[in-house]
Amino acid sequence: MIRVSCRILPQWRFITTRRWYSVSKNVQIKPVTQLRTCTKADFVSAPNSKLQSMIWHNPLQNVLITKKPFTVGTRKAMVDFISHLHDSYPEINIIIHPEVADEISEDFSQAVNNDPNRPHVLYTGTQQEIVQKTDLLVTLGGDGTILHGVSNFGNHQVPPVLAFSLGTLGFLLPFDFEEYKDIFKRVISSRAKCLHRTRLECHVVKKGTNSKEPKNKHVIRRAMNDIFIHRGSAPHLANLDIYIDGAFLTRTIADGVVLSSPTGSTAYSLSAGGSIVSPLVPGILLTPICPRSLSFRPLLLPHSSHIKIKVGSKMNQINANTVINLSVDGFPQDDLHLGDEIHIINEIGTIYVEGTQIPPYYRDKQNGPDKNTDSLPEPHQKQVLNSGIYCVAKSENDWTNGINELLGFNSSFKFTRRLQDN
Amino acid sequence: MIRVSCRILPQWRFITTRRWYSVSKNVQIKPVTQLRTCTKADFVSAPNSKLQSMIWHNPLQNVLITKKPFTVGTRKAMVDFISHLHDSYPEINIIIHPEVADEISEDFSQAVNNDPNRPHVLYTGTQQEIVQKTDLLVTLGGDGTILHGVSNFGNHQVPPVLAFSLGTLGFLLPFDFEEYKDIFKRVISSRAKCLHRTRLECHVVKKGTNSKEPKNKHVIRRAMNDIFIHRGSAPHLANLDIYIDGAFLTRTIADGVVLSSPTGSTAYSLSAGGSIVSPLVPGILLTPICPRSLSFRPLLLPHSSHIKIKVGSKMNQINANTVINLSVDGFPQDDLHLGDEIHIINEIGTIYVEGTQIPPYYRDKQNGPDKNTDSLPEPHQKQVLNSGIYCVAKSENDWTNGINELLGFNSSFKFTRRLQDN
Amino acid sequence: MIRVSCRILPQWRFITTRRWYSVSKNVQIKPVTQLRTCTKADFVSAPNSKLQSMIWHNPLQNVLITKKPFTVGTRKAMVDFISHLHDSYPEINIIIHPEVADEISEDFSQAVNNDPNRPHVLYTGTQQEIVQKTDLLVTLGGDGTILHGVSNFGNHQVPPVLAFSLGTLGFLLPFDFEEYKDIFKRVISSRAKCLHRTRLECHVVKKGTNSKEPKNKHVIRRAMNDIFIHRGSAPHLANLDIYIDGAFLTRTIADGVVLSSPTGSTAYSLSAGGSIVSPLVPGILLTPICPRSLSFRPLLLPHSSHIKIKVGSKMNQINANTVINLSVDGFPQDDLHLGDEIHIINEIGTIYVEGTQIPPYYRDKQNGPDKNTDSLPEPHQKQVLNSGIYCVAKSENDWTNGINELLGFNSSFKFTRRLQDN
Amino acid sequence: MIRVSCRILPQWRFITTRRWYSVSKNVQIKPVTQLRTCTKADFVSAPNSKLQSMIWHNPLQNVLITKKPFTVGTRKAMVDFISHLHDSYPEINIIIHPEVADEISEDFSQAVNNDPNRPHVLYTGTQQEIVQKTDLLVTLGGDGTILHGVSNFGNHQVPPVLAFSLGTLGFLLPFDFEEYKDIFKRVISSRAKCLHRTRLECHVVKKGTNSKEPKNKHVIRRAMNDIFIHRGSAPHLANLDIYIDGAFLTRTIADGVVLSSPTGSTAYSLSAGGSIVSPLVPGILLTPICPRSLSFRPLLLPHSSHIKIKVGSKMNQINANTVINLSVDGFPQDDLHLGDEIHIINEIGTIYVEGTQIPPYYRDKQNGPDKNTDSLPEPHQKQVLNSGIYCVAKSENDWTNGINELLGFNSSFKFTRRLQDN
Repeated sequence: MIRVSCRILPQWRFITTRRWYSVSKNVQIKPVTQLRTCTKADFVSAPNSKLQSMIWHNPLQNVLITKKPFTVGTRKAMVDFISHLHDSYPEINIIIHPEVADEISEDFSQAVNNDPNRPHVLYTGTQQEIVQKTDLLVTLGGDGTILHGVSNFGNHQVPPVLAFSLGTLGFLLPFDFEEYKDIFKRVISSRAKCLHRTRLECHVVKKGTNSKEPKNKHVIRRAMNDIFIHRGSAPHLANLDIYIDGAFLTRTIADGVVLSSPTGSTAYSLSAGGSIVSPLVPGILLTPICPRSLSFRPLLLPHSSHIKIKVGSKMNQINANTVINLSVDGFPQDDLHLGDEIHIINEIGTIYVEGTQIPPYYRDKQNGPDKNTDSLPEPHQKQVLNSGIYCVAKSENDWTNGINELLGFNSSFKFTRRLQDN
Repeated sequence: MIRVSCRILPQWRFITTRRWYSVSKNVQIKPVTQLRTCTKADFVSAPNSKLQSMIWHNPLQNVLITKKPFTVGTRKAMVDFISHLHDSYPEINIIIHPEVADEISEDFSQAVNNDPNRPHVLYTGTQQEIVQKTDLLVTLGGDGTILHGVSNFGNHQVPPVLAFSLGTLGFLLPFDFEEYKDIFKRVISSRAKCLHRTRLECHVVKKGTNSKEPKNKHVIRRAMNDIFIHRGSAPHLANLDIYIDGAFLTRTIADGVVLSSPTGSTAYSLSAGGSIVSPLVPGILLTPICPRSLSFRPLLLPHSSHIKIKVGSKMNQINANTVINLSVDGFPQDDLHLGDEIHIINEIGTIYVEGTQIPPYYRDKQNGPDKNTDSLPEPHQKQVLNSGIYCVAKSENDWTNGINELLGFNSSFKFTRRLQDN
Repeated sequence: MIRVSCRILPQWRFITTRRWYSVSKNVQIKPVTQLRTCTKADFVSAPNSKLQSMIWHNPLQNVLITKKPFTVGTRKAMVDFISHLHDSYPEINIIIHPEVADEISEDFSQAVNNDPNRPHVLYTGTQQEIVQKTDLLVTLGGDGTILHGVSNFGNHQVPPVLAFSLGTLGFLLPFDFEEYKDIFKRVISSRAKCLHRTRLECHVVKKGTNSKEPKNKHVIRRAMNDIFIHRGSAPHLANLDIYIDGAFLTRTIADGVVLSSPTGSTAYSLSAGGSIVSPLVPGILLTPICPRSLSFRPLLLPHSSHIKIKVGSKMNQINANTVINLSVDGFPQDDLHLGDEIHIINEIGTIYVEGTQIPPYYRDKQNGPDKNTDSLPEPHQKQVLNSGIYCVAKSENDWTNGINELLGFNSSFKFTRRLQDN
Repeated sequence: MIRVSCRILPQWRFITTRRWYSVSKNVQIKPVTQLRTCTKADFVSAPNSKLQSMIWHNPLQNVLITKKPFTVGTRKAMVDFISHLHDSYPEINIIIHPEVADEISEDFSQAVNNDPNRPHVLYTGTQQEIVQKTDLLVTLGGDGTILHGVSNFGNHQVPPVLAFSLGTLGFLLPFDFEEYKDIFKRVISSRAKCLHRTRLECHVVKKGTNSKEPKNKHVIRRAMNDIFIHRGSAPHLANLDIYIDGAFLTRTIADGVVLSSPTGSTAYSLSAGGSIVSPLVPGILLTPICPRSLSFRPLLLPHSSHIKIKVGSKMNQINANTVINLSVDGFPQDDLHLGDEIHIINEIGTIYVEGTQIPPYYRDKQNGPDKNTDSLPEPHQKQVLNSGIYCVAKSENDWTNGINELLGFNSSFKFTRRLQDN
């Protein structure tokens, strides 16, 4: 996935309560809670394929569609897509976020199959409610839209993702929107194949002396791309102590450090000098950001690693004002301070060498549902089956094509031909 | 593993037939064929460990000891080690190579347990014979000695490796020779733990027009560290077409390319700019050597990848004289020519996307046993269980310690303290 | 010079008016305005030397001594140094900053040469007054102290710098404080040699729409190490348009960009991946910070280059809130906004290709003397003779020694010996 | 200049004696010795330009034209170019190499200005004779043709270079051949501007024990791009001791080392990881090739540096067979052996720190004139005026354009637009 400059849209974050009613002649809004609980596809491997076939034993019904708000192009695409689904697949229920419902409800120029008695029914609700119901996540937009759509699921399992781009290419975006009818047919009829991507899990443990926060507050965030800590605008370099599986690796004096999934190896880690890693490699990239050393070569650690990074201070000096930025998939988080720790693991499972488990987390009762910290699985209960994100793929070689077409990998010098005849 | 400059020792390569007899008062040489066939240890995982416990259900008996020939230090160490094993473990049979037998047979100043009736029995034979009998491989020397000891097993399964260094550190060498008594006791009593390292498999397919070689000759070599192709002393850059899983990735105009296992990520790939990869990450590194491009970032591919590299020519020009060097774990191989291919896979198994299998190999009947091409497993018969090399490990964190102590990873600038009080 | 994490000490920045009197039994404070105007050394080249001999045709008299405030070690060193100068060189006048006078005035346990009638006379005044009088700048501390001492001179010519370190090494610090008597004797007797370092000049042109600042405000800052612009804590990447000598070079989407002098090549530019450049090479380094490209290789431009960087926005989007941090030698400056420009040149002279001069600068009358913007030389009046900073050097090979001893340049792997005998 | 894979054309190297006569109806060959000695242009700087105006006080008359032999395109271009010069500038004498005369003499379909009494007169002779007569060097082909054309001048001063490309771009090639009439007119009428590029000078001092060569044989070669030493096909890494200005810098264990001029910074040094350096920066790049270290960052040294590299051996081991390849502008030279040294300086002048001069060279009387070792200027007699190569330039910003158009510098990811609207 590429590196995106994310925007934080407040309306995507805080969902207000709202009533359910016909908002326009052709649109009717209903509560998502009326839908049945989500069903899960099976993912089947084949000996000659790097992908998994996505098989719906129970029919796919509840489709959540997300888009970047307030751009004309994606708005029209969304209406077309919903209309097509309603016209062609009466069993499909469309779920959208409340603010999207507001945005597009006036855009439907006709009812389902042009039958005035069949308005377009759109289901919506709180993020928590939507999470419980979604069978498939469809995103319309770029890589940022996918990252955001997935981040809405917080630490819950993410449904399979079908991503459409609108006119241009993107690293997570195999499908041109023009093909949406064919692709959706393939998906619903269990003929689509998926690439399995795993997320990183970031545990923030506030051990520091910063008085404004409860001691040992423990927050968990998942990242499809990467987690990074950075000194931001602070004039001091960060002092970061890095431990792997309980053993001290190194102290880095640097702008920061990126922890990246293989999916995120083409995002910030790439900019910071990391290698490009296939999403099929189970590993965690540790890439320094402008380290004060000649010899901090980027590392690739096993996916089962437990990486702890602790915010340190200069040797003889307590700098209580140390402020380190933390970012998850490009979304800024609460700052870290002296003594705070982050623990990075892969969501599919960690080998905790004796005595190095993550501290039991503090269940912050004040955390609202948007923080997604309740009903978290304990680390030791993690299962590969319920982890990671299945992304509908175009072909076996999407990744190879992507690094060539999108990143300009190994692009030749332009005078190649010249050189060949001198 | 670090990058070694290997030497080719002719006496290690060509083993002559020889008789078996007492070569000195205290030493008796016997044919290795008298020993029972090798036995295999079991390797057991534990939830809190990255290593496997090595359990001998059938007792460990046949120990092959290799060393760098003709250096005084290792010669004395070998005699001490053999004497200790003979004195303390009467059930252990010592296997050595014929030329080592020649070298050390005069060095035993006393018989076993000082009993003149019990000479030191050393078993030897051809490489093929030794391979069939060895339960455990002990190496005395540096990383080069390990690479060489392992390469003797060619494409056969390698027994567990117990490596001792003599006075200095090395990347594959957890054990100081001083500790040999304790360590061996741990190994024989099933209390040792091992790190599992996998090898790459290089299939050389001579498709080229070079007349001296049979068309479609197919040679297989395994590498613990890496396989590289390089223009060597040729003034032209190499033109190499790289395919991954049957799909064209890129043509590189470069000095060459390194394909490296994670173990070899600290060898040539590191010099060429690759990331440092934990041996526990299942993957294959593809690192260019001085490419004529600004954007050939090193890649990390899944271990199940099938990487084909074909020697190409300049666009408008048949250069029949193209000569590209091929090297496996630092050992030079026959040169490649225009049109020749190498196929790199991991020995533990490959997903061949439809239609991209490696061409069936030509069984060169002339290949003597030292080429190790007979009794090769067909690629589709590969099994994880029988693949890779188990290396006796010191602790869970050997790798972390190694990159710090041996590579000088992230070494600080020396004025750190200074900076802290200005 | 290495990369320092600078601290901004308010007491070094704002000097208050104060009276002049005996502050303790052994110390008398006098106004620096009583001293004669500063005298300049001559710098003479020799055919076999990369350094210049520093010759005092008029005697060296006025010595400004700076130190990091409020650390015990440097405080004692300063008192020792001043006492030695007063005892041994009655003609020398010691200048210190007011806050240093406050700090150390009680520390002199005896008067000059133990003569109670001869208190230690310390001259002080405003920064502007001090600048006019100083013949030689002596710094006690690390590289940060030098950077700060030099930055006090703003855009004025900097006197020769004699730097002492206190117990540890530093990249700009040839002299151990233990040697201070010998070294000072060498300096005052015209037997010292200097390395000539040049500074970069950063012109900030506020063209942007940010309403809080006057349009076309033009600020000039000089940097011994480097100037960098960085997105800081902003979640968006910076969009920066870079022009060289009036021609568009590239737009970079990145965390930022460092412009560095050769002296600063071992500071931030090094962390960001730049080459190490000898201070004797006349050039300007342009090194990207985490660019979103595989092919932004660091550049080295002629010292006569005129580099313009303009803060841009995303293509279809006016982001009026763009905030880009600007830093000069590690000291944060006012933020940049959309449309603002910085122009980087070398203080020793620029070839302005026709039509590409820096816009005439706005003389901000409100700028107090601490901003050092008055009496700025016009760019076209720059002269090599009056530019750059002469730093007293230890030997011809300080730089070679420095990259080895301080940076750990090309440090070997630790098992070198091992490898040699396997 | 880019990195070229050079070919060695034996016919360009060894020129045989030949008679002078009309070789075809329209062509007459004459000895170059009949021409007057070469004249030199003046090069004049202007305050607003990075280039020098090339002024012919004595008229430009003797034009040497070189091309890549035996390709149809350049052959036709050469005939067109010569015909145009003969038709339009009767005062111009065309010089070509003997083998080119052979190649093209049948290609002139008509005589000068179609007057059968005026055959095309082509002057030729030995390389040494040509060198003495040439006012201007015109090259038809790619960067390789320029490198080769310049290398013909050996250690003599190179005349100004006017380079034409044929249909494609090149790093040293501002002019498309289509423009040849206009450009030549500009050159002959003193309206052209030149970029001054300097060459490196490589002194090979055979100090080694290799018995086949005279002790202390001293050979000098000049390079427009670079000089590199490399282990080539040897399985051992090279052990190279590097000294700068007489002081030991480092021992590198590596594939090799590149010493590059700024012009050559876009050739091999770039592939090996060096920065891109403007040809206007006076400096020498030292870039390691695959070093066995994490911390050998590329260096940029002053142009006045004296860099010595000595071929070393492993610590405890005399390896008399060490063979290190040496290459000058891509042309292979005699191999180096243990103990041999190369000394790299810039042709425009070196500051030899006391006691570090290059050993006086052995004038090998056997060296024929093609080796260009006679009449070498002593190092201390070097003058900037007579050094370097003036290359006719298109505009002030050729270099900026070149790194963008030819190298694909900082090429954006292809989804930039996409990212901007998600």
